[in-house]
Amino acid sequence: MAQPLRVGMVGYAFMGAAHSQAWRTVNHVYDLPSPVQMQVVSGRSAPAVAAAARRFGWSDHTTDWRTLLTRDDVDLIDICSPGDTHADIAIAALSAGKHVLCEKPLANSVDEARRMVAAADAAKTSGVRAMCGFNYRRVPAVTLMRDLIAAGRLGTIRHVRACYLQDWIVDPEFPLVWRLRKEVAGSGALGDIGAHIVDLTQFVTGRLVTEVSALAETFVRSRPLPSAAAGLSALSAGGVVERGEVTVDDAVLFLARLGDQVVATYEATRFATGRKNGLRVEINGSLGTLVFDVERMNELQFYDLDRPVEEQGFTRILVTEPSHPYMAAWWPPGHTIGYEHTFTHQAHDLVRAIAAGEDPTPSFADALQVQLVLDAVSRSAETSSWVTVESAIVDPVEERV
Amino acid sequence: MAQPLRVGMVGYAFMGAAHSQAWRTVNHVYDLPSPVQMQVVSGRSAPAVAAAARRFGWSDHTTDWRTLLTRDDVDLIDICSPGDTHADIAIAALSAGKHVLCEKPLANSVDEARRMVAAADAAKTSGVRAMCGFNYRRVPAVTLMRDLIAAGRLGTIRHVRACYLQDWIVDPEFPLVWRLRKEVAGSGALGDIGAHIVDLTQFVTGRLVTEVSALAETFVRSRPLPSAAAGLSALSAGGVVERGEVTVDDAVLFLARLGDQVVATYEATRFATGRKNGLRVEINGSLGTLVFDVERMNELQFYDLDRPVEEQGFTRILVTEPSHPYMAAWWPPGHTIGYEHTFTHQAHDLVRAIAAGEDPTPSFADALQVQLVLDAVSRSAETSSWVTVESAIVDPVEERV
Amino acid sequence: MAQPLRVGMVGYAFMGAAHSQAWRTVNHVYDLPSPVQMQVVSGRSAPAVAAAARRFGWSDHTTDWRTLLTRDDVDLIDICSPGDTHADIAIAALSAGKHVLCEKPLANSVDEARRMVAAADAAKTSGVRAMCGFNYRRVPAVTLMRDLIAAGRLGTIRHVRACYLQDWIVDPEFPLVWRLRKEVAGSGALGDIGAHIVDLTQFVTGRLVTEVSALAETFVRSRPLPSAAAGLSALSAGGVVERGEVTVDDAVLFLARLGDQVVATYEATRFATGRKNGLRVEINGSLGTLVFDVERMNELQFYDLDRPVEEQGFTRILVTEPSHPYMAAWWPPGHTIGYEHTFTHQAHDLVRAIAAGEDPTPSFADALQVQLVLDAVSRSAETSSWVTVESAIVDPVEERV
Amino acid sequence: MAQPLRVGMVGYAFMGAAHSQAWRTVNHVYDLPSPVQMQVVSGRSAPAVAAAARRFGWSDHTTDWRTLLTRDDVDLIDICSPGDTHADIAIAALSAGKHVLCEKPLANSVDEARRMVAAADAAKTSGVRAMCGFNYRRVPAVTLMRDLIAAGRLGTIRHVRACYLQDWIVDPEFPLVWRLRKEVAGSGALGDIGAHIVDLTQFVTGRLVTEVSALAETFVRSRPLPSAAAGLSALSAGGVVERGEVTVDDAVLFLARLGDQVVATYEATRFATGRKNGLRVEINGSLGTLVFDVERMNELQFYDLDRPVEEQGFTRILVTEPSHPYMAAWWPPGHTIGYEHTFTHQAHDLVRAIAAGEDPTPSFADALQVQLVLDAVSRSAETSSWVTVESAIVDPVEERV
Repeated sequence: MAQPLRVGMVGYAFMGAAHSQAWRTVNHVYDLPSPVQMQVVSGRSAPAVAAAARRFGWSDHTTDWRTLLTRDDVDLIDICSPGDTHADIAIAALSAGKHVLCEKPLANSVDEARRMVAAADAAKTSGVRAMCGFNYRRVPAVTLMRDLIAAGRLGTIRHVRACYLQDWIVDPEFPLVWRLRKEVAGSGALGDIGAHIVDLTQFVTGRLVTEVSALAETFVRSRPLPSAAAGLSALSAGGVVERGEVTVDDAVLFLARLGDQVVATYEATRFATGRKNGLRVEINGSLGTLVFDVERMNELQFYDLDRPVEEQGFTRILVTEPSHPYMAAWWPPGHTIGYEHTFTHQAHDLVRAIAAGEDPTPSFADALQVQLVLDAVSRSAETSSWVTVESAIVDPVEERV
Repeated sequence: MAQPLRVGMVGYAFMGAAHSQAWRTVNHVYDLPSPVQMQVVSGRSAPAVAAAARRFGWSDHTTDWRTLLTRDDVDLIDICSPGDTHADIAIAALSAGKHVLCEKPLANSVDEARRMVAAADAAKTSGVRAMCGFNYRRVPAVTLMRDLIAAGRLGTIRHVRACYLQDWIVDPEFPLVWRLRKEVAGSGALGDIGAHIVDLTQFVTGRLVTEVSALAETFVRSRPLPSAAAGLSALSAGGVVERGEVTVDDAVLFLARLGDQVVATYEATRFATGRKNGLRVEINGSLGTLVFDVERMNELQFYDLDRPVEEQGFTRILVTEPSHPYMAAWWPPGHTIGYEHTFTHQAHDLVRAIAAGEDPTPSFADALQVQLVLDAVSRSAETSSWVTVESAIVDPVEERV
Repeated sequence: MAQPLRVGMVGYAFMGAAHSQAWRTVNHVYDLPSPVQMQVVSGRSAPAVAAAARRFGWSDHTTDWRTLLTRDDVDLIDICSPGDTHADIAIAALSAGKHVLCEKPLANSVDEARRMVAAADAAKTSGVRAMCGFNYRRVPAVTLMRDLIAAGRLGTIRHVRACYLQDWIVDPEFPLVWRLRKEVAGSGALGDIGAHIVDLTQFVTGRLVTEVSALAETFVRSRPLPSAAAGLSALSAGGVVERGEVTVDDAVLFLARLGDQVVATYEATRFATGRKNGLRVEINGSLGTLVFDVERMNELQFYDLDRPVEEQGFTRILVTEPSHPYMAAWWPPGHTIGYEHTFTHQAHDLVRAIAAGEDPTPSFADALQVQLVLDAVSRSAETSSWVTVESAIVDPVEERV
Repeated sequence: MAQPLRVGMVGYAFMGAAHSQAWRTVNHVYDLPSPVQMQVVSGRSAPAVAAAARRFGWSDHTTDWRTLLTRDDVDLIDICSPGDTHADIAIAALSAGKHVLCEKPLANSVDEARRMVAAADAAKTSGVRAMCGFNYRRVPAVTLMRDLIAAGRLGTIRHVRACYLQDWIVDPEFPLVWRLRKEVAGSGALGDIGAHIVDLTQFVTGRLVTEVSALAETFVRSRPLPSAAAGLSALSAGGVVERGEVTVDDAVLFLARLGDQVVATYEATRFATGRKNGLRVEINGSLGTLVFDVERMNELQFYDLDRPVEEQGFTRILVTEPSHPYMAAWWPPGHTIGYEHTFTHQAHDLVRAIAAGEDPTPSFADALQVQLVLDAVSRSAETSSWVTVESAIVDPVEERV
């Protein structure tokens, strides 16, 4: 019998719930080389973490994440806490020889991210693995998008058109939760959802964002203080409402180039009324176009110029066939999957990479590259000028040339 | 210079307006062998027909359609009046040596339709042409549908799924217009819109409806009498509202077989709230599926089983390419056309057939075949039993075998 | 601490996998009065059931379902085996004092279903509960549909338009799996997927199908025998292929009435090329329309006549708000769920009903009512005549009047 | 009887055909105060303009547009020739006391546009009217969009997201037609289609673009010379193909601000494979969102936050009701219109404005404002910096404050 992979998770809010569902499920859907064990969850509030352990199915719980590092029965640390905690936990975990899965964005700053990459590089020599959790790469339709582009089906890429539209804070009385405070979240829409579209478009095109011109806006500049910051669902206190300053962006828009002659628009906002989780990406190439919308995540639109002109059109591929990425393990064709499955697929890929002694992707370096783009976007918005993105990794397409 | 084709039109309500737009336009869009001249329009009310002539661009007008038959300057009679007038006008016109375009449904009864076919057959020997106006055959997407099926792209046809959904009389206080009176309209949803889906599905599949099991319903059985019946837009009189009996069907549903092993559902209703002109047809074959919806008439959905399984899906073909039926004469790709264009295409085909000395389609016999289906549907609904459809024409597919 | 609810499951193919996922998940998402324990799974093949137990997370396994009835550590029998086994297992389980969840269709015949209802009625007196697993009732959009109709938002119901379209056997060389053999499956598309749309439409409208006129067709009448019948994925044996007769319907279409003046079309087929899991329902009422498609199960279309006419249209409701049925337990708005969640919701409702001492729905009587419709459809298709549906339960709407 | 409005048109290619269709139709659909007469068309090639006159229905033709200015039987000059001719013709026509309708973009440079505005202002004092032909303002759905925003239904505008995507030159062997030469067309995608989305978004929001950061790209920098440049459909000559330099942009992308706190992305490209006429606009406000796509021009999507949260969603309004802008004159609800109708609506508005002695919109000043945006975009792309847009007219919203 294979050695189990024993997981310790830090954080138990929205991401903690999603990761727990994945760890609980992945054994039972996929053939894994190592069975996953949900060993221990860590969180600051003792009663809350105890409740979370019970609810989510963790065997043990603790209020100090540092204890996870010294436990012999933990092989992997899964970091689901806010962005300002990522660097400390990840670096310590890697140093302690624990594999790490770290939620995106990798860090709140480039410096932190660089130190995390260094730690990951150091750990790698002793077989310790690090991965960043850009879960949308594991939507089957997104992986299929990547595969079609890699197979040359779009020809020369011309345009990237990406937006991530949400609307959960359009109400000016929505409270000042932690995601709206720079010191905790690092940035607003930029790091929370902008990071996803930067990673996703780099992933599917195999190209890196090289320069940006950005604009950031905070539409609502003060908000009621929450009685307790509790993820997305914090409610404003009654009575006289004390207000605090919103210190992050509500929306960020940027133009970009990805290498030579690929041009792009990106937009991340929390003020697109009616768009709940509107991550949409369109890629135009000389031979075709691909379009994806996470609100209809089981579908991929493909326009293939290599068809008779009378029959050309956008084909709505229902990405539920056994031959589609990740789907053989699930249900018959037409039986759809949901948001949480992306985390199960991520867990699957991570467990297999660890067992195979391979580096999982996206690596910390991939995530640093996203961080470098976010940083360039911030600086561009501040200076109202084009900013070149530093490259942490070699552009895979450029490299091939 | 070619001889002009001089048109006399009977009726000037909804269909009269649509046909006028077509006659006015067809010369200016297509290269026609004969220029069309809008000679004269006929209608019962002298001031109204005079106004219609002015509005729609007819050179002359009359209150007696019989005068059209004796005029030397009229080559073609275009019948846009209610169904109870079709037989008399068409037969007289054909006898007088005038070509005839007759709006659907061809007649209010099979007997009338048979007499019209006989008149058309007799006239044909002297080069006089007759056509029935099933305009939806001339939607480019519908013609494309027919072409794809004729080319074998769907393989063996299995299913026909057709409905024509409207909602203009859901309000029980909508008045008792002529379309709701059997003695004028012949039937309700059945002849008005059911006729379209019967013709369209027979046209695209090249197969005939051979037997039916039907159900008809009149949801609202009495309605306010209109002060004046004026097409679709009659308003109820104020004050005490006198009511009359609705003598036609509000909705009719039927199962059908089209030859051997093709099974079908049909539905025509004026009570599908929110469906304004919801003519939708889906054809499933062993190799593919085609779907059309007239509310998005510039689009055709095509599922082609002859693609790699990972890339299969419904392709939304935007039917606006120059190589699509009828479209080379219009605008660049992506620039859409509308409802009225179907009549322009119909005029185009008719003018060309007359000039070429060929029989235009749908012929009166094709329209009689539709009438036979409608008649079988009526009898099936009355008797609550399956009824076999008599065949006026040979099933083109059967014939080939 | 509440008493756990200990489950024994019979069958471990497609439905067994889906139910296992639900039992494994429901504790961790919802606050349940009783924690669920996955005690034992039963199946005929010893090695296969052992593997299934391991894969799906059952503590124990057995090759004889009868042993489940005598075990003290099993409170509920979950029947996921083929339809011909349902009656025996369910009746024995209820007699043994075990709660029962039985997959649809309840049985392969009305007689069996009646005996099961009798057994359920008898067991109820001692607090033993029985439920039939029509999982699509638990799609949040479907429950919302029911709620909106129950609140009168559609006014008087006029039309039901339901189809369940699949295409998994369009290839004539697809093998003769058990679902294509009448002696095991009872019927073809009719019982497998037709049952779903009958139940779903009765559920959302609160009305019963009272009479039907049906047509059934078997397009491909002989198929290769599978080397081993193994659910949907059986592959044809190589070499010379022995063929057997298909003894069930490939497609069934029927007209129906639901009480007075509600008219309906139903269609269930496995030959609708390109439709993978195309369960689509449209309900038209005097005040609005609702449309649902399970291939986009997180969405509900609502046309509300009670809006200004200029703003009327089909509203695509993304059914992912915390205030939507079942959704508060899952993810933030816009983060979708998938097929398997319907089983988790079903498990949730069942566990809560048992704990509350209430009868879960759909009851065996509700499922018998569906069976009576299926039976009437079969007889109608055989006799080519309208058949009245017997009523096992009182029409809830009629009752209110 | 009212005085007729006698039109002289310059140019007879794509725009000439569309305008002709409008002039031919408008009298017959709308009640106009002045009947329109299609007097004369002008073009450089004698045989071609003669053929165009015959085809499109103009009474007379000429090869010298200057003769139109001296004819007593011409009241209005309709300029449909390429952009480099607009200023000369329009200024001369206005000086000659002729009303002017000038196709967009108003001019190839800001200087030209300014002189045209001055000419229009001067002419206005003697009752001579000038209008620029941004036809998409006259899509009923776009006018409805404007009306809903003007009525406050979106609350405070936050985001504008506009793109105009085409693909007609993705093939590198598509010839170097006049639209790809700067000296004739002024710019590429920017002036041709970018102008439309700038005008449309300013029109519907009632706000002006005030600053921009742009990026322009020419993907294919040399192309075969056409044997004859003939609009969009020029074909490359056979044999050895001589090539010329493309001197305009293939694509232009820009960020923008519209007054205070409205942020926007714009994109115009001819390289979006599969997008034929993909003009799409989304406006997010604090109370709702509107979305329009010209490929489905009879539809408008409206998300209205002022609905119960469970029923919120994007409502697909079919803009075909008599109470919708321009639609009472056309067909019953659900019977759609097409691209050319926008020109008929434009003609209707212009004729009525002239008869009423009012200034039609968009005025030349409105069009200059668009030109100023295009100019700022060009300079921004050249300098890779943010550029402030000069204001020719007062921002109507700012003015209200």
